[in-house]
Amino acid sequence: MGNSFGKLFKITSFGESHGGAVGVIVDGCPANIEISEEEIQIELDRRKPGQSKIVTPRKEADAVQILSGLYEGKTTGTPICLIVFNKDANPKAYEHLKEVFRPSHADYTYLEKYGHRNHEGGGRSSARETIARVAAAAIAQKFLKETINIDTVGYVSQVHTISCSIDRNTVTREQVEATIVRCPHKESAELMIEHIEKARKDGDSLGGIVECVIRNVPAGLGEPAFDKLKADLAKAMMSIPATMGFDIGSGFSSIHMTGSEHNDAFILKNGDVGTRTNFSGGTQGGISNGEDIYFRVAFKPTATIFKEQDTLTKDLEPVKLAAKGRHDPCVIPRAVPIVEAMANLVVMDHLLRQNAYQF
Amino acid sequence: MGNSFGKLFKITSFGESHGGAVGVIVDGCPANIEISEEEIQIELDRRKPGQSKIVTPRKEADAVQILSGLYEGKTTGTPICLIVFNKDANPKAYEHLKEVFRPSHADYTYLEKYGHRNHEGGGRSSARETIARVAAAAIAQKFLKETINIDTVGYVSQVHTISCSIDRNTVTREQVEATIVRCPHKESAELMIEHIEKARKDGDSLGGIVECVIRNVPAGLGEPAFDKLKADLAKAMMSIPATMGFDIGSGFSSIHMTGSEHNDAFILKNGDVGTRTNFSGGTQGGISNGEDIYFRVAFKPTATIFKEQDTLTKDLEPVKLAAKGRHDPCVIPRAVPIVEAMANLVVMDHLLRQNAYQF
Amino acid sequence: MGNSFGKLFKITSFGESHGGAVGVIVDGCPANIEISEEEIQIELDRRKPGQSKIVTPRKEADAVQILSGLYEGKTTGTPICLIVFNKDANPKAYEHLKEVFRPSHADYTYLEKYGHRNHEGGGRSSARETIARVAAAAIAQKFLKETINIDTVGYVSQVHTISCSIDRNTVTREQVEATIVRCPHKESAELMIEHIEKARKDGDSLGGIVECVIRNVPAGLGEPAFDKLKADLAKAMMSIPATMGFDIGSGFSSIHMTGSEHNDAFILKNGDVGTRTNFSGGTQGGISNGEDIYFRVAFKPTATIFKEQDTLTKDLEPVKLAAKGRHDPCVIPRAVPIVEAMANLVVMDHLLRQNAYQF
Amino acid sequence: MGNSFGKLFKITSFGESHGGAVGVIVDGCPANIEISEEEIQIELDRRKPGQSKIVTPRKEADAVQILSGLYEGKTTGTPICLIVFNKDANPKAYEHLKEVFRPSHADYTYLEKYGHRNHEGGGRSSARETIARVAAAAIAQKFLKETINIDTVGYVSQVHTISCSIDRNTVTREQVEATIVRCPHKESAELMIEHIEKARKDGDSLGGIVECVIRNVPAGLGEPAFDKLKADLAKAMMSIPATMGFDIGSGFSSIHMTGSEHNDAFILKNGDVGTRTNFSGGTQGGISNGEDIYFRVAFKPTATIFKEQDTLTKDLEPVKLAAKGRHDPCVIPRAVPIVEAMANLVVMDHLLRQNAYQF
Repeated sequence: MGNSFGKLFKITSFGESHGGAVGVIVDGCPANIEISEEEIQIELDRRKPGQSKIVTPRKEADAVQILSGLYEGKTTGTPICLIVFNKDANPKAYEHLKEVFRPSHADYTYLEKYGHRNHEGGGRSSARETIARVAAAAIAQKFLKETINIDTVGYVSQVHTISCSIDRNTVTREQVEATIVRCPHKESAELMIEHIEKARKDGDSLGGIVECVIRNVPAGLGEPAFDKLKADLAKAMMSIPATMGFDIGSGFSSIHMTGSEHNDAFILKNGDVGTRTNFSGGTQGGISNGEDIYFRVAFKPTATIFKEQDTLTKDLEPVKLAAKGRHDPCVIPRAVPIVEAMANLVVMDHLLRQNAYQF
Repeated sequence: MGNSFGKLFKITSFGESHGGAVGVIVDGCPANIEISEEEIQIELDRRKPGQSKIVTPRKEADAVQILSGLYEGKTTGTPICLIVFNKDANPKAYEHLKEVFRPSHADYTYLEKYGHRNHEGGGRSSARETIARVAAAAIAQKFLKETINIDTVGYVSQVHTISCSIDRNTVTREQVEATIVRCPHKESAELMIEHIEKARKDGDSLGGIVECVIRNVPAGLGEPAFDKLKADLAKAMMSIPATMGFDIGSGFSSIHMTGSEHNDAFILKNGDVGTRTNFSGGTQGGISNGEDIYFRVAFKPTATIFKEQDTLTKDLEPVKLAAKGRHDPCVIPRAVPIVEAMANLVVMDHLLRQNAYQF
Repeated sequence: MGNSFGKLFKITSFGESHGGAVGVIVDGCPANIEISEEEIQIELDRRKPGQSKIVTPRKEADAVQILSGLYEGKTTGTPICLIVFNKDANPKAYEHLKEVFRPSHADYTYLEKYGHRNHEGGGRSSARETIARVAAAAIAQKFLKETINIDTVGYVSQVHTISCSIDRNTVTREQVEATIVRCPHKESAELMIEHIEKARKDGDSLGGIVECVIRNVPAGLGEPAFDKLKADLAKAMMSIPATMGFDIGSGFSSIHMTGSEHNDAFILKNGDVGTRTNFSGGTQGGISNGEDIYFRVAFKPTATIFKEQDTLTKDLEPVKLAAKGRHDPCVIPRAVPIVEAMANLVVMDHLLRQNAYQF
Repeated sequence: MGNSFGKLFKITSFGESHGGAVGVIVDGCPANIEISEEEIQIELDRRKPGQSKIVTPRKEADAVQILSGLYEGKTTGTPICLIVFNKDANPKAYEHLKEVFRPSHADYTYLEKYGHRNHEGGGRSSARETIARVAAAAIAQKFLKETINIDTVGYVSQVHTISCSIDRNTVTREQVEATIVRCPHKESAELMIEHIEKARKDGDSLGGIVECVIRNVPAGLGEPAFDKLKADLAKAMMSIPATMGFDIGSGFSSIHMTGSEHNDAFILKNGDVGTRTNFSGGTQGGISNGEDIYFRVAFKPTATIFKEQDTLTKDLEPVKLAAKGRHDPCVIPRAVPIVEAMANLVVMDHLLRQNAYQF
């Protein structure tokens, strides 16, 4: 279970890292959206391995195919199957990992859960699963942009000890894409890249923070009680591999303020309701208020490293383990499109949910 | 929508702050659990207003009644309705708020969403809704404790600028309940209480952090992809009113470590698989690994304050607003049982989900 | 599980026959519907016991209370709790049934499922549960009627061996309500009433058929594959206690026709697409086509009879059992509002689902 | 929406008749089931076109591929993608149908719903979609058989005016497969085959009844209120294309009996609880009682015929239409494995649901 996300724009993800394919079914996509494999591919290319010198060199084109749900270039309202066949699948490369639990990976937990697992490249627990999310969200992104001008921009604000402050009001995707680390602050970006290259040489890995802003979300999205917009965003982000934390608006730093400092006064903006500050991060009572939604996601340093580590085999024998082969010293740059994808999926779903009740 | 939580242990919450009642239906509770109104009341009493000098003085017994789903003191497997009739409902006290949007409250967003709202005490957006969660989770808590000895302990580790470090391995509920602020570190607790009392006098409010540890969760709970244990915990916590952030295990601080520092080496513990460190916070690949699950939840300073604030009426007239009447200067002490409740609901649901597949 | 119905207009039902109350939460009701307890009561009165000489004489006012979700007489979009407290609860009357399995009742299956059951009046398996459905659907019915003039009329077309043919195009609720058996064909109605009274005297029971027509459903409701309108109607109807069969349009009798006889030719009706015949029953490919939707529901003779029957105790002792006390010789007249209720719930849910995708 | 079925054994179906592929994701399959493409193919071959002289001659191998969710021949608990690439896709053959609504087909309703449709071979509304169900259910069938010996046998009992009575207690799949029409009564089968061949020559089509029995279902499956076993079976069957009716146990014929005739007396069978008769069809209160579950499904004569019919174009022009090309004069023989498939999916799902609560 657990491989579906969304209630009205529902995606169901499948596939393993070194199986035949990874893919996704989108059920509940509005009809009449013009979308092409090329448009989806643009997003997948931002996620794909081998895109720069600081990410994993696995060679995958990650070429997407649309198997159903479109006709004459437009969605038909019926399920869309998007699929990426694995090319660089090399199960043999993982032979030495069949009997051993890689520290801080899902090897042990999958075996405990299922009693049987595909260990090759992490099998189902591989971050290759996120291809499904990025591909599906490319359709949502296009719809949101064209229909109500919603604009989602993610970027890297911290890698390990190197952090910077980005103006979330003005940042653009062009600025983000200008550096291979996807940090729009150029000086910091250079430091981050150096830092990541050093980690690669050390056989070590680094974590960081991806921030994201969603603009032009109309007021009224999100539901009371459990399906608050912030709650669904939290779930969406914490379902991405390697995430360790999420906060929205002022987030953890809200604690250092008092209520009178933190409350967002309502004021007139262009003749409509707005807020003077936006510590709330664009939602109040779990429902969007029309201001920008922004949040942060913390990623741990990835678990695959080349340094020798202590661990156990599945027969409970202590062993030393050092990863071989390919290695992603910092997933943060590739995580940016995944964070954006999940944000777009959440907003799309809540837009449809809200729309259901408009008569 | 959005008033249900859980897939197999599913709760549906209803009721407004100053309506007739707040309550909950539990659908999917195992049969044969012995539970009484008194046992549920113990948890509600930890959440109720007026329990100490540092929380809102609203006078509510919050006395729970079981309307269905039990027979001869034991659950029957059919839906359990738990209800708390509102006693101190005083809709008139909110007359002055009918036309005005309280800053950082849900007044504006509910009106935008629904076009019609109950403004009395926040109506549905009131934190009184959390009664439903605490009541329902009391049943889950008993089952988890009795069936597999799962133990959930929440506590306050920070109020505004006053923070402390608690040993999550040893903290007990008795230690937590020993202070009215529910911080098990006595010296810090006294400072926090002073600080909250000052905020009350100032008509201001304070936020803080609730930490929580869940012990004895068996390995194997949680699902791949979207319904990861950490993702469902994140959603659960971020669905609580006033929450701004969530992190698990090493959380946001994981960023300052490298992979070789952060990875949790597998070692033998009592002849079984364990980890030397537990930066992962008890889950890997979204699935529990048998180690303690622990996480933090950030609460903003609550929005109701007595200080004068700028805002708008629903006719877009700028006005000055100062709350009258009752006021909760810091919700953190009362948030502890709510955080525990949501944690127990998530674990209970995933326990049933995992159990479904054991043959 | 299993106590919720609907995806966007979702009801969750609770309560036992002789427990404190039966009730329902409606989650996902549009805001701004004017509805009163009196309007809901009208529908409940059509379902309630003791309404005529041919139904069970249990004395229940079945007076509904609205506990949440309304403000100033209009729905707020938040969960609506409707509750009916049981008045004529007399658990002692069922003492003799505690240890014995009533034939064709749910006594045995509930005990096998849950290992613990409330035997009083059937507990949760009692048809009193349908109060929840009728109450919730009264709101849907009002919305459907006022918003798009949808009109649902159910009626009795057969009781045991007495059947009649009703013109489904013209039948009105007034005609239906004109006889206590809810058969709009007066001569047949009289025969049915006589027949039911005889069954009562014999301590026996009778089944029959309820037919239902839904008018003015716009084309386009229903979903491909599994959530076809006919499939959801089938589930809705077969979830009513004592139902044994469902067919739609020409139903089982379609088998005697060939394709060329059965196909519904498309023709112009008032300048729009219509069909010459309507053997399809208003849906094609699972989706409404704008023609009247009509279907039949078969109810078995109810299981409670006064005649002596063979059965077993829960200790597997063979015994003779004859019911005592009250007895409903034919549930068909009271089933009419339940069938209509379920039909309205299905249409309401699919209307919201379809509306979600209209941009 | 609407392309998923099941709660814990959840299938999501995708694909169009003449698109690239049809397929299914199974999410929630227990791990460690040995299953091969060959075993799934056996079931698909029973459904596939061209299997005999009385079904559509479309030439499709319908060869299934397993794209994910298995490792070393056994399920891993992660999503299983089963896919059948379309070989005999010939979109051009449907050019003449692009602008016209075929009577009693889904052409008009899909266009009304979505505003854009794939008309080729019915697109998503084609019965080719049922490949997904049969393929997914083959895994459930194997698990049910091996784990608890559940045995599902469907068969044809009526084609148009030719009906026969089959002993549901003894009928075997071997007997069913012995005739191409899947009627285990040989004399009737021969008449049915003749009758179907005549219909083909006439360019007309015939409907009929598929009956199905499910043996060895343990007592306790099914849920109170809405997810009754009979309700979920009804939905499952009525979601199959061309179905018009469903009844269970004594079904519509129960109406001719009185309660004293219809009630199933509990008696001892092999030292355990059984019933003397089984008019209930194996469920009481919506929950299985351990007796055989049996039901009937009515299929209309299929809509595709070669005879000339009146209809409209999408510009509302009246036209005459006669189908060209291939034609299935009677879908009943191929419907048998689909009915069995849906039955197995329902039982599998409820088995997991019940298992979730066993501690």
